[in-house]
Amino acid sequence: MDALTDFPQQLAFLAEIDKLKGVLRQAELIDGTRRENSAEHSWHIATMALVLHPYAAEPVDMHRVLKMVLVHDIVEIDAGDTFAFDAAAHLDKEEREKAAAARLFGLLPAPQNQELLAVWQEFEHNDTPEARFANALDRMAGLVSNTHNRGGTWRRFGIAREAVLRRMAPIEVGMPGLWPQVLQMVEQGVADGFILP
Amino acid sequence: MDALTDFPQQLAFLAEIDKLKGVLRQAELIDGTRRENSAEHSWHIATMALVLHPYAAEPVDMHRVLKMVLVHDIVEIDAGDTFAFDAAAHLDKEEREKAAAARLFGLLPAPQNQELLAVWQEFEHNDTPEARFANALDRMAGLVSNTHNRGGTWRRFGIAREAVLRRMAPIEVGMPGLWPQVLQMVEQGVADGFILP
Repeated sequence: MDALTDFPQQLAFLAEIDKLKGVLRQAELIDGTRRENSAEHSWHIATMALVLHPYAAEPVDMHRVLKMVLVHDIVEIDAGDTFAFDAAAHLDKEEREKAAAARLFGLLPAPQNQELLAVWQEFEHNDTPEARFANALDRMAGLVSNTHNRGGTWRRFGIAREAVLRRMAPIEVGMPGLWPQVLQMVEQGVADGFILP
Repeated sequence: MDALTDFPQQLAFLAEIDKLKGVLRQAELIDGTRRENSAEHSWHIATMALVLHPYAAEPVDMHRVLKMVLVHDIVEIDAGDTFAFDAAAHLDKEEREKAAAARLFGLLPAPQNQELLAVWQEFEHNDTPEARFANALDRMAGLVSNTHNRGGTWRRFGIAREAVLRRMAPIEVGMPGLWPQVLQMVEQGVADGFILP
């Protein structure tokens, strides 16, 4: 890297991604005061990675996992957040996010533009140990939030047990040792009336 | 780690740190719509680490750097954010933050409680290559924010060039290759009337 030529582009990227703090998810904070944004969500799952890595299904390169969870939502600056349980919005999600990734990571100088684009693609393709663990963490965030926030999005949108379990399936793959705990939390959600049976 | 005995404590910690999303800093988002919180700030500097690591003064273990920036502000859940240019509030900052670290990291099972406490202490003591780079990133975040937001906290609180340069000094140590750029950005801030001469 050369500070004179590369830093202006890096600075433009780092200023541009400030916008992720304004992208709102459907999930609310646990204290219920407001909706969560994608930047603070990304921090939360990165910190979850530090705590939950002993449960990763396979050995993982933690530096790569952290890179992945830190950049995985940056595309939402252009493509918006797509709600987990909105099937219609998922139809063109891939196309919207690909264009966003090209523009946003393209702000960086080479080779960082290609490097972070590849990290984002790895998360999306979900076929490496690091990506499987990162995707499991992303789902775990929803579980932690909803179980501590009176059902959160499950309750507000009337989600059924079957849809919740389908959504949580990446945890069974990426952190199989926690799957019994996940099942127990979901059954508790049903018992509490936060998840439809 | 044992899911049965350790996971409930880990879950309690991961739910508790959701509160960092409600700790407000003096800095505003670049779009000026609201004040920034410490969780999204932590995400921003972690992502800055991915982009700016080629400028680190010494070789750094990036996994350790990322751990440090992800947990460095968690103490603020109990201790609050201490504004950079508030000398009075800095008098008891260390004491407040030590108690906060003991309680918050203490929610985790051993050995993770000790491990993350040590990572936070390393950031505070600022005497390893990783800590020097992490502290430089923390200061860079303020610079990126203020230079893209009409002077931000510099302008709102009437900060002078000398105080800004003192605040930015860790960048000269941790990312010396960017120091000429920092000086240039500060002089531009003075020229624009955002920093007092």
